[in-house]
Parts: sequence; structure tokens; C-alpha cells
Amino acid sequence: MFEALTVAVSTDLRFGDRVKLTYNGRKIEGMFISLEHGLITLKLGNGYNIVLQEDEFRPDQVTKAENKPERRPRSVDVKNGVKILATGGTIASRIDYTTGAVKPSPEVISALETGEQNVGYSVIDDILSENMTPEKWIYIAKKTKEELDRGNHVVILHGTDTMTYTASALAFMLERQSRSVILTGSQRSSDRPSSDAFENISSSIMFTALNAGEVCISMHGSISDFSGRLMRGTRSRKMHTSRRDAIRPVDGRYLARIEDGVAIKEAEFRSTGEDSVLIPKMDSRAAILYFYPGMDPGIFETIAQKNDAIVIMGTGLGHVSESIISEVRKAHGSGVHIVMTSQCIAGNTNLNVYSTGRELKAAGAISAGDILPEVALTKAMFLLANHSDEFEKLMQIPMRGEIEERLRIE
Amino acid sequence: MFEALTVAVSTDLRFGDRVKLTYNGRKIEGMFISLEHGLITLKLGNGYNIVLQEDEFRPDQVTKAENKPERRPRSVDVKNGVKILATGGTIASRIDYTTGAVKPSPEVISALETGEQNVGYSVIDDILSENMTPEKWIYIAKKTKEELDRGNHVVILHGTDTMTYTASALAFMLERQSRSVILTGSQRSSDRPSSDAFENISSSIMFTALNAGEVCISMHGSISDFSGRLMRGTRSRKMHTSRRDAIRPVDGRYLARIEDGVAIKEAEFRSTGEDSVLIPKMDSRAAILYFYPGMDPGIFETIAQKNDAIVIMGTGLGHVSESIISEVRKAHGSGVHIVMTSQCIAGNTNLNVYSTGRELKAAGAISAGDILPEVALTKAMFLLANHSDEFEKLMQIPMRGEIEERLRIE
Repeated sequence: MFEALTVAVSTDLRFGDRVKLTYNGRKIEGMFISLEHGLITLKLGNGYNIVLQEDEFRPDQVTKAENKPERRPRSVDVKNGVKILATGGTIASRIDYTTGAVKPSPEVISALETGEQNVGYSVIDDILSENMTPEKWIYIAKKTKEELDRGNHVVILHGTDTMTYTASALAFMLERQSRSVILTGSQRSSDRPSSDAFENISSSIMFTALNAGEVCISMHGSISDFSGRLMRGTRSRKMHTSRRDAIRPVDGRYLARIEDGVAIKEAEFRSTGEDSVLIPKMDSRAAILYFYPGMDPGIFETIAQKNDAIVIMGTGLGHVSESIISEVRKAHGSGVHIVMTSQCIAGNTNLNVYSTGRELKAAGAISAGDILPEVALTKAMFLLANHSDEFEKLMQIPMRGEIEERLRIE
Repeated sequence: MFEALTVAVSTDLRFGDRVKLTYNGRKIEGMFISLEHGLITLKLGNGYNIVLQEDEFRPDQVTKAENKPERRPRSVDVKNGVKILATGGTIASRIDYTTGAVKPSPEVISALETGEQNVGYSVIDDILSENMTPEKWIYIAKKTKEELDRGNHVVILHGTDTMTYTASALAFMLERQSRSVILTGSQRSSDRPSSDAFENISSSIMFTALNAGEVCISMHGSISDFSGRLMRGTRSRKMHTSRRDAIRPVDGRYLARIEDGVAIKEAEFRSTGEDSVLIPKMDSRAAILYFYPGMDPGIFETIAQKNDAIVIMGTGLGHVSESIISEVRKAHGSGVHIVMTSQCIAGNTNLNVYSTGRELKAAGAISAGDILPEVALTKAMFLLANHSDEFEKLMQIPMRGEIEERLRIE
């Protein structure tokens, strides 16, 4: 069973092989994941990876992986049920992190096949969510609309990294929806003991019964199992790199929870309607710019030349330095929309309190209450494509629940 | 007492005049703040401002403000005590938001003059903190060192917007310190009933007694009065636009609290030493870049041309899209340092888990555990100026408590 390996034959290692070695004097055991760019990646028992230089790699023992026949993902059609659309991400992947390609995991497929009645499944994309683009959002929106029109609820499997960007993009494009649309993902892949993949899919299916007529996200509400929570797509954000409850509503208020296997409503949301209306257009000439002390105004200028709308993540209530205000004035003068948001993430913006805010306002910038910066970006892309004449007005009005707190004047 | 005003004479209004008017059918009463760019700002009784177009401004009544002689700020020298250095911001300002200029409020000065023994006071700058620059950080650091060398603790009054940037910049430049250095500010100016200015100054003076040998921040720990808390300058962030406890430690752990007027230690920190060592050099050719889906790679290219280090706020564990990875490779090839941080804010980065991270690593990017993006920026500026040959190595090692969680391999 065991073979001694030398450096020269390390490339004979295959995904899944078990490797024992000594690293900095410690005994380590892990599974071979990949050899890329001269770096060998092993997955340890605790779920973490370790990366070693190929030329320093001296395994003590290697146990070859067994050959298992791979089950192939199927596309299962369904009507008046729940259709799961897989776009990629950890939830739809096996441990094969090497390519990032979606190989819907055998575990997830088995669960679906043996589980819920009237649940269909289709792979519509196969990417890690950091590679999402506005074009892909439009494609997902169209696929979602097709399923809604067939009487289905839609559960979208998506990487957690940019899930809230996609959720809010879909929210703006879907003016009205006939059934539930819920994005879900997982922070741990389905082959790990701590995986949240099954629970998140199962919670999402349960949440569809609430008929929330808006685009939602279903993830864990705490690091514990059985803590399924539903959130508004336009009011949530990934706030931790690794916790299972990484995606959270910015004000901490969830729309619904799972309790004893039943979805319980916790807040009001829009009801589903008779039909669905999709406006499948986004204009990607919008950017997020993060302000910091000492920022070179030339950076602003370049971004303004390449975009028709800039969402600035300013400080505090929505501020930038004086040198950037003059760039805002120039950009606004040449027709670029400027939206002030805050790098604080939580709380309202307000351009009326300090002189900096008032100067920004006079230079043409607007703010939009407590809209999240990422949501302001997708809203800007939607407005540029569909309502560019009313950009400033509509940006400041809640269209899909994305603004909760506006400027209070009393 | 009351004068009828017409639009033509509205510019006769002076700061402090009381104005009554009808706005959208509602009776409003407020204090005149400013007329700038055709916009009139009134401060309402609840502390919020309202901004009206000058040509729509039709006050029902105006009560002129009394002329009060203004007290002038003094500079009070002190030795072996506490020296307060005011740099500006809300804490050091009167309600005169019009200019943003620091006019240390009479209330704060009176409190200092009648209050603590052996507390000195000096105005060293007069800006809103969004206008801070690396050059100003160096100036503050030198002034701080002067006071440390005279045996003083130093309390720095600073706007909250960029307080954590300044705190971390000072932390890197101050290699060692002989007494406490504490930044504080306020979210409400000292003339408002809800002001946190006095309590934050008073808490800061009490915290100096703990002799924390690192740069700290003292602010409220909750929205309640009497909740003074001490935080590590390199591990805190402004997380809310308006709450009094806006600045928080990213992991929720404070260093100390005030209880019954006494500073109580809650965590270990570095002890003050015999002397202070300052390395007053920062290189401002470093930038923060916030990644988002659909980002134009040309933006990255421009920023790379203008900088020697780029702190990317990526998604999740520290990711960007494939099209940006090729720009990272190019930039790294031409000598630009690339540091991956996460827009999630909380949690560890890790370039070993997913293929995207491994490709970024192969392209030359590094990550630095759970360092905050803003702190990575000031550290990059410090390393560029003082240790550019060891940039990658030192960025990944905690120098001032800025990295708590690193890659765990077991």
C-alpha cells in the first residue's frame, strides 16, 4: 500500500492520495490536492490546506487513493415545484478546489434524488463567484425568470464571496416575481464534516413556502447547525471570511428562521404576485472607489474616465478629502453620477452635517441613506441601463428595500 | 426681536440666528449655520441639519443671535503629566461646521482649565480628519514624540472618520514609547446635549495611567454614557456612521474599560519602556483597491503605475476575478507589492484554500492573516519608506499587534 516517494516522482501524485510527511519537525498527514506553479497543496484533517514548495517536498509515506466511479450531475426538470439552479461556488463543488470548476458533488445530488418531492436541479454555470460579471447576472436572471414562469420557486446555488452582489443585481432586474427566489451557498464544501451545504439547501427549500416576493438569501444565522435564516438580498453583506454565518443582514434583522423544520416569518416582506416581470439589462460602466487618506486624485480621474457612475466608499457620513472633492466636481460636470456611501458599512450617510458633505453635494454628489456600497453598485448598473435620465432621483428612493434609513429632518 | 426676511436679505443671516419656517407644510425651527453654493443649512433641535435651496428659503421669523465674546484656545505646557494635542475633528470643534476649522470649543477648554491637575493642551492642527495625509501623520508623530520625551502621556484629539488610519500609522512609526499614547474623538460636538466629547477626553486621561506601551484609541463601548473603552490602534475600525460606539475592535475585545471612574485592564498589552523611539518616515505610494464583480482591469493597471504597493480588498478569503489576477502578475513583475485583504473585514485571509488564492500567490500576491485593510495600507507606507527590501516578509509578521490570526496548519 505504501510507496516511498522522491521529489522526482512527486508529480505522480493524484488528487485524493494520502500523504504523511514531516514539516518543521512536526508530523503532518494530509490529502494531495494539486501541484501548480511548483507549489504542492495538501488538505489537512482539520480542513485547512497547507502549501509546500515542490523542491522541499519529502513525503514519508503515500497511500494511493482508490478509483471511485464518479456520479454525473443530472438536470431534472420540474413544474410547480422548486428548481435549483447551480452557478458554482463551494456549495456546488466537490473538494476539487484545483480548478474551481463546478462538479456538483455526488453528496448533494444524492440528497436531492432521495430527498424532497418535486425538486429539480440544473447546472447553469460553473464558476467561483469572484468571477461573476454583470453579464452573468443577466443570464442568471433570465434562467430564473424561465423557472418562475413555469410555476417554480427558484433556489440559486452560488459562491458566498459575491452572493450579495448577485442577489441585489437580481433584485433590481426582477421588478416583480410570482414565486420565491432564494440564493444560498456554503462556507464549507459538502465533503467536509462541518459542511453547511445540505442544511442551507434544505432550509432554502423550506423558506420558498413563505412566498417572499423579493430576492432573498438563505444561510446560517449562527455558527451552529440548524440555524437557517432568511435575509433580504439588498440588505445583506458577507461580514466574515470563514464563519458559517458570514453573510448577515447589515442591521442584524432576519426575515425568517427555521425552527423544528418549519420556516417562521420574522418580518414583513413583499408578497409574490401573479406574474414575474424582468428587466434584463445592466450597464457595467459603474465602479466602487474606496477612499483613504493620501489618495492620489489622479486615480479618481482615471476611474471617472472609464465609468458613468462611481460609488465612493467615503469615511464616516460619506466624506472624502478636499483634493478628491474637486475631482468629483469635474467628473459630475462631464456627466458622471457620483454616489457617496460609507466604508463604515453600518449607519446612515448624510451630506448635510459637515462642510465636507455639503461641498460634495454642491459638487454634484448624492447619497442614498444607508444603502450598502455593493448594492449601490448594482443599483447604479441597473439605473444606467434602464433609467439613466432619472439616476439621481431613483438612486435616493428605495426600489427593492435597499434603503431603510433616510435623512431624518425631524 | 423678530424681523421679516425676504430672499434678498437672506445672506444677512449670521451663524447662530434662530429661524422659523414652513417646510413641506410642516413648521420647522432651527439655527442658521451657513449659506454656501446657494444652499442654506439650518441645524434643528434634534441635532440634525436640513439643507434648503436659497431661492426657496422663506423664513416666517428670524431671531438674531446675541454677540458673545469668543474665548480663545490656549496652549498650556506641562511636564510629567498629560498633554492633549488637538488635531481637529468634531471633538475639538464648536458647532461651526461651516469651515471645518478647529475652534476648540469653549466648553472643552473650560473643562480642562477647571478640571484635572497637570493636564496641558495644544492645538497642533485644525482639520476634519478626512483631510489627513501621510505627511500630517508624520507631523503628529513628531509632536507626540516631543511630549513623550518631556515625560508626558499624550492624548490626541482627532476626527473619528480616519482615526484608525492615524492610530495605526503612529503605531508603526513609534517603535517604542515611554508613556501612553491615546487617540480620542467624539461623534457629537461638545455643544450638543448628547456629546461624548467630555467623557471621551476624561476616559482617555484615566486610561493613560495604565501605561499601555502601544498606540490606543479611547471611545464609547456602547451608546450609553459612562462606557469608556480602550482599544488597540491597529485592530480597530469605524463600523458605524453615527453611533457613539462607532469605533470598535474588529474582534470585539477591548483592552480596558472605565468602571466607577477607574481604568480597569481587560487584556494584555505592551508595557511602556524607558525611552521612545520614533521612525518618522512614511512613503505614500501605497493604495487601497476595492474589488467588485465586473471591475475593469485597466483601473488596476493605472493604480499599479502610480503606486509601489497595493492593498486589495478582495472577496472572501482574499480573492479577485481571473482578469485581475493577470494584472497582479504584471504589477508584481514590475516591482509593485500586492497585499490581499478582505472586504469582509472580519476573519482571516488565506490564499491556500481555493484555486483563485493559489493563483494570486503564484502571481506574487501575499496575504497577512487578519490584518485590517486600512492597517495594511499604513503598514505598507511604513515598510516602503523604511524596510522596502523586506516588504513581503515583514508584512506577514505582526509588528505592532496588527495581525492576530495567521494561517493555522494544524
